[in-house]
Amino acid sequence: MSAVKLEECRQHIRAQLDSVVDFWLKYSHDTVHGGFFTCIGKDGNIYDELKYVWLQGRQVWMYCRLYRTVDRFRKPEILKAAKAGGAFLRKFARVSSSSGQWKCAFCLTRDGKAVKVQRSIFSECFYVMAMDELSRVTEDQDMQLEAEQMMEQLIHWVRVDGSGLGRPQLPGDVPTNSMAVPMMLLCLVQQLSEDRRGVEQKYAELGSWCVQQILQHVQRDGAAILENVSADGSELPGCLGRLQNPGHALEAGWFLLQYAAERGDEQIQTTAIQKFVELPYESGWDKAHGGLFYFLDVDGHCPTQLEWSMKLWWPHSEALIALLMAYSQSRKAELLQSFFQVYEYTFSHFPDPAGGEWFGYLTQEGKVALDFKGGPFKGFFHVPRCLYMCERILDDLLASKE
Amino acid sequence: MSAVKLEECRQHIRAQLDSVVDFWLKYSHDTVHGGFFTCIGKDGNIYDELKYVWLQGRQVWMYCRLYRTVDRFRKPEILKAAKAGGAFLRKFARVSSSSGQWKCAFCLTRDGKAVKVQRSIFSECFYVMAMDELSRVTEDQDMQLEAEQMMEQLIHWVRVDGSGLGRPQLPGDVPTNSMAVPMMLLCLVQQLSEDRRGVEQKYAELGSWCVQQILQHVQRDGAAILENVSADGSELPGCLGRLQNPGHALEAGWFLLQYAAERGDEQIQTTAIQKFVELPYESGWDKAHGGLFYFLDVDGHCPTQLEWSMKLWWPHSEALIALLMAYSQSRKAELLQSFFQVYEYTFSHFPDPAGGEWFGYLTQEGKVALDFKGGPFKGFFHVPRCLYMCERILDDLLASKE
Repeated sequence: MSAVKLEECRQHIRAQLDSVVDFWLKYSHDTVHGGFFTCIGKDGNIYDELKYVWLQGRQVWMYCRLYRTVDRFRKPEILKAAKAGGAFLRKFARVSSSSGQWKCAFCLTRDGKAVKVQRSIFSECFYVMAMDELSRVTEDQDMQLEAEQMMEQLIHWVRVDGSGLGRPQLPGDVPTNSMAVPMMLLCLVQQLSEDRRGVEQKYAELGSWCVQQILQHVQRDGAAILENVSADGSELPGCLGRLQNPGHALEAGWFLLQYAAERGDEQIQTTAIQKFVELPYESGWDKAHGGLFYFLDVDGHCPTQLEWSMKLWWPHSEALIALLMAYSQSRKAELLQSFFQVYEYTFSHFPDPAGGEWFGYLTQEGKVALDFKGGPFKGFFHVPRCLYMCERILDDLLASKE
Repeated sequence: MSAVKLEECRQHIRAQLDSVVDFWLKYSHDTVHGGFFTCIGKDGNIYDELKYVWLQGRQVWMYCRLYRTVDRFRKPEILKAAKAGGAFLRKFARVSSSSGQWKCAFCLTRDGKAVKVQRSIFSECFYVMAMDELSRVTEDQDMQLEAEQMMEQLIHWVRVDGSGLGRPQLPGDVPTNSMAVPMMLLCLVQQLSEDRRGVEQKYAELGSWCVQQILQHVQRDGAAILENVSADGSELPGCLGRLQNPGHALEAGWFLLQYAAERGDEQIQTTAIQKFVELPYESGWDKAHGGLFYFLDVDGHCPTQLEWSMKLWWPHSEALIALLMAYSQSRKAELLQSFFQVYEYTFSHFPDPAGGEWFGYLTQEGKVALDFKGGPFKGFFHVPRCLYMCERILDDLLASKE
């Protein structure tokens, strides 16, 4: 693969990132209440004012990360919006709970009143991501402490006692290791530990535990990644046990690759590439129409999720990062070929040159099925994170070729 | 419209009903634990053993209704399976709750252990339907009493205090009148009251309240049915307020038509036909590809539900009943034409002559998107209820033409 092609790719990705950032700067800021509108239509119109906490936290994180690490995004308007988003979250996201724990709402009204609380850990995870990254930009130590306190709450729910999440304990509800949980915690360990030796040591054992939990999802003698396994790492019965989510596996793949690179751990690197990048890419790719399926059943049954065959933006974003990082670490030519296959599909289907940003939801055949640019689960996160990560990896690849 | 065409239609619907009943008799019975498998693949294979309480209750109800009211289904094997399903529900569906109320699980393991509890009323509603109809077949007065006790619990949750459902009270979560709730309660009032004068009187005020709650969904000066309105009957902001569910509106339509017919209430009949049958049929029909959309936004924004443009079996089932009943009551020729438009689409797309039963989920263009015959939300209910109701209405129509 020529350096010229990689350079073209970098230029394209840089331009895409600039354009996507401009879209959210232009349309998403609530200058009255702080925080971000995320239900944004095809041409930038706000079609719902609800504020989803996952997306508020993710946008604060992404703005701060860009501001902190990319010179061209060190702009006052980005910092100002990130701070306003952080203040909105700190003021409104946490809801009082009967058990006195730090539960966050899932979604809020425009002016911050809690509408819904989920019985899971993810609002809190994105709260931690936001607060930690914002504290790095503002050097606010109280905020950093708050992120770590929330992290302790998360660890308690996941590893000690999850009853504070509010799910009733039921005899048929067996403890399950769902990919999202150790993946998300590993992501937070990496976030909190960056350039902080003491925090890194504090969470070293947790990071190792998360990696082991993720590796339990390698099933069927290494032939498949399954989304849900039992707490002791065996296959679960029925649809739940057979479910595959190729985008999630690929995302876990690049988290593992980062973890392996930090430690020079070749064994984890090899497993990550073979099992969490190559395998889900092979099994998840739609040979008939191109693109990655959203869900699959490992035994070939039809998944029960109505959207199983749709092509969503985020698995493609995660695949681009995972394949490029895997190539960067291994220099296996096939990985770069696969990266360019996903790249061609992604950039010929998802971006909307007319209205800006990416469409998020395509039919199996690649037609736009939902035409908004932001919604309850699509905000300023997967697209810019993908473009940001790929730009950085390409910078390193091209620097090493000079 | 000729009586010959109606007679052909009746013959076809009779044959379809016989075939669908045979499918479930053949594949769905769990002869070990009682109850029904509902995750049934294209060719009858069981791909998951979980037992969804909605579908257990619905199958008991449908078997008993067929057994009780249609001579050719008065078969011992149908009664035996209904009784075994009822026993399974009575033994396992109810879970103990901290508040001591009668909450039912949403899904159970094959042998009856609770897996999940929803914070809504619907498992309990289908429990009531099952117990009441089964008690009519078995003449079990304890069971009838149990259905009425559960009904009192439902009324308490809906009209007095819903905190027992387990949702935290949140300042941004405004009280909402969702179509499903008064629709479902009206259905139960009609179920419990049939041929029971005392019960009819007991629930007369509730029935009237349900009708008023349903009529609150007529919005925009009569130009649209909205799925969710505020408790005082005004439009709600955002996606929630603009959501339309044509299948639900049509289902509510025939519940209202039944209610109007029982009372000879021409005003409700007229509203039901114009607002709950003609209007959602017109606005919900896909002029490009045929079939009824699953969700729409009244202002033409893209719904956020990923499956909004899919064609599902149940809105078409409800449309067939609603249009034929509306024609039967009004004799407006346009309603029969619309019935035959839905009939043509339905029978050329959903049934699977090779494997039996109907597919449930098509793409917007009408391709089978999920190929199973039963799943977590598709059981022995909408298809046979549609065929059963249409056969009865056609019997009456043809008898009146003789």
